[in-house]
Parts: sequence; C-alpha cells; structure tokens
Amino acid sequence: MIGRLNHVAIAVPDLAAASAQYANTLGAKVGAPQDEPDHGVTVVFIELPNTKIELLYPLGDDSPINGFLEKNPSGGIHHMCFEVEDIIAARDKLKADGARILGNGEPKIGAHGKPVLFLHPKDFNGTLIELEQV
Amino acid sequence: MIGRLNHVAIAVPDLAAASAQYANTLGAKVGAPQDEPDHGVTVVFIELPNTKIELLYPLGDDSPINGFLEKNPSGGIHHMCFEVEDIIAARDKLKADGARILGNGEPKIGAHGKPVLFLHPKDFNGTLIELEQV
Repeated sequence: MIGRLNHVAIAVPDLAAASAQYANTLGAKVGAPQDEPDHGVTVVFIELPNTKIELLYPLGDDSPINGFLEKNPSGGIHHMCFEVEDIIAARDKLKADGARILGNGEPKIGAHGKPVLFLHPKDFNGTLIELEQV
Repeated sequence: MIGRLNHVAIAVPDLAAASAQYANTLGAKVGAPQDEPDHGVTVVFIELPNTKIELLYPLGDDSPINGFLEKNPSGGIHHMCFEVEDIIAARDKLKADGARILGNGEPKIGAHGKPVLFLHPKDFNGTLIELEQV
C-alpha cells in the first residue's frame, strides 16, 4: 500500500535559523518560507535528491505545532508522510485492521493540495504518519 | 553537502508486531530481523521505492535504544540518516560551524558497513542526525 516517503517534517523553534543551518552548514537546497494558513504552519521545503524535509513553524495561536514545541522546545521530528495511490482504499484497509484515523476520518486537502490523512501515533510505534494521495 | 535521505530509524517496543504491521497493514516490503551486536540493536529494513525505514529494537543490556524506549514506551522516530560523499570533510565543516559530533568525533563503521557519524540533537532542532559516507 504505502509507496514513496514523500517527506519528513521537523518542527523547529526558529525557522530562519533552521533554514540557514540546512542551507549553509548541511549544504542542502532550501526553499523560501510558505505560509499555510489552512494548516496553521509556515513551511520551508528542503529538497534532497530522493525526498523532502519540511521544516514546520507555527502560524497563529491555534497552530497544531504549538503544543509539540511546548513539549519539545528544541524542536523534533513531527511526522513522516507516505504516498498512497488511493487514500480511501488505504483508509478503509487501515480501519479494518483496527488503526485509528485522526480527525473525522475523512481526507483533507494537505499542504501540497492533495488529499491527506493522519494516523494515530499510538497505533504506529509512537510515530505520527501522514498518508498523501499522489 | 548532504545527499539522499538514506533511512529514517524508528525505535519500536515489539519488533515482530511492528514488522507485521508494516508488512500487512501498511503493505510495505519488510525484511528479516538482523542482529547488529556491535551496535546493540536488532534491525528490520523496510524498503520503500525511494528510501528505507529501519525498525530498531534493543539487543543487549547496553543497547543505545534502551534509554529511548524508557522515555518513549510506545516507540518513536529515533534518527534520520543523510548520505555524504566524504565524511571527514563533512565532519570538519560541521565542527567549523560549531556543531557537535557525538562520541570521540571519529567515524565508526555503521550497520551498513560504511563510515558514520552522529550529530548532537540539540544543535539540529532536536533531531538526531546520522551521516553515512556512501
């Protein structure tokens, strides 16, 4: 079912510092910050040859990243995203196997303009998994 | 400097259950467990089309994963590994930029038989980064 690793998302406490570090110290290809008001985040994409890193920074008081940064003030890996061909089929298979889908169980349009779902970390070894239909 | 994302490593409290979940529920290509006594871990590789997931489980009382699982009993993302062409040049650049290398600062031979280094998580947004020379 799961295909490519689309990205690894890292919540960071200082987006400019983290971007500069990936660009200068780690020598990666770092994009410009993009506000995603529907998702409560500002995102910086780092293009690696085979996948992406997404730096996440809170946008607004209701950002889903605020709580994570309160618990992890230095930042940390927030989630990883796997690509799927059919997100409804993936969801139904996961539910049939007893995995919990976050939210109301319906795909939302994610930061890349494609349908996404998030799976409950407690069902997946403490990791927050995003599925994105490609 | 950094190239491909070689793998994302996930520490898991039950290696058989996690392997079965990735194989059956997530439909991924999951390998057999491999003991790595020099690193204190048993590893299961999950092959994705563009990168790998490594499930890590403690091997022995001195395993570096024991402490992580005590703090995160459900498991969690332990580190991510970027490929570099020249690990000594990478290390020297990182040190010149003020980043801390874990251990004695000399590359060790990692689980894939190639030289690796780990960078201090506090210097990299709370994420443990492994560099592997390929």
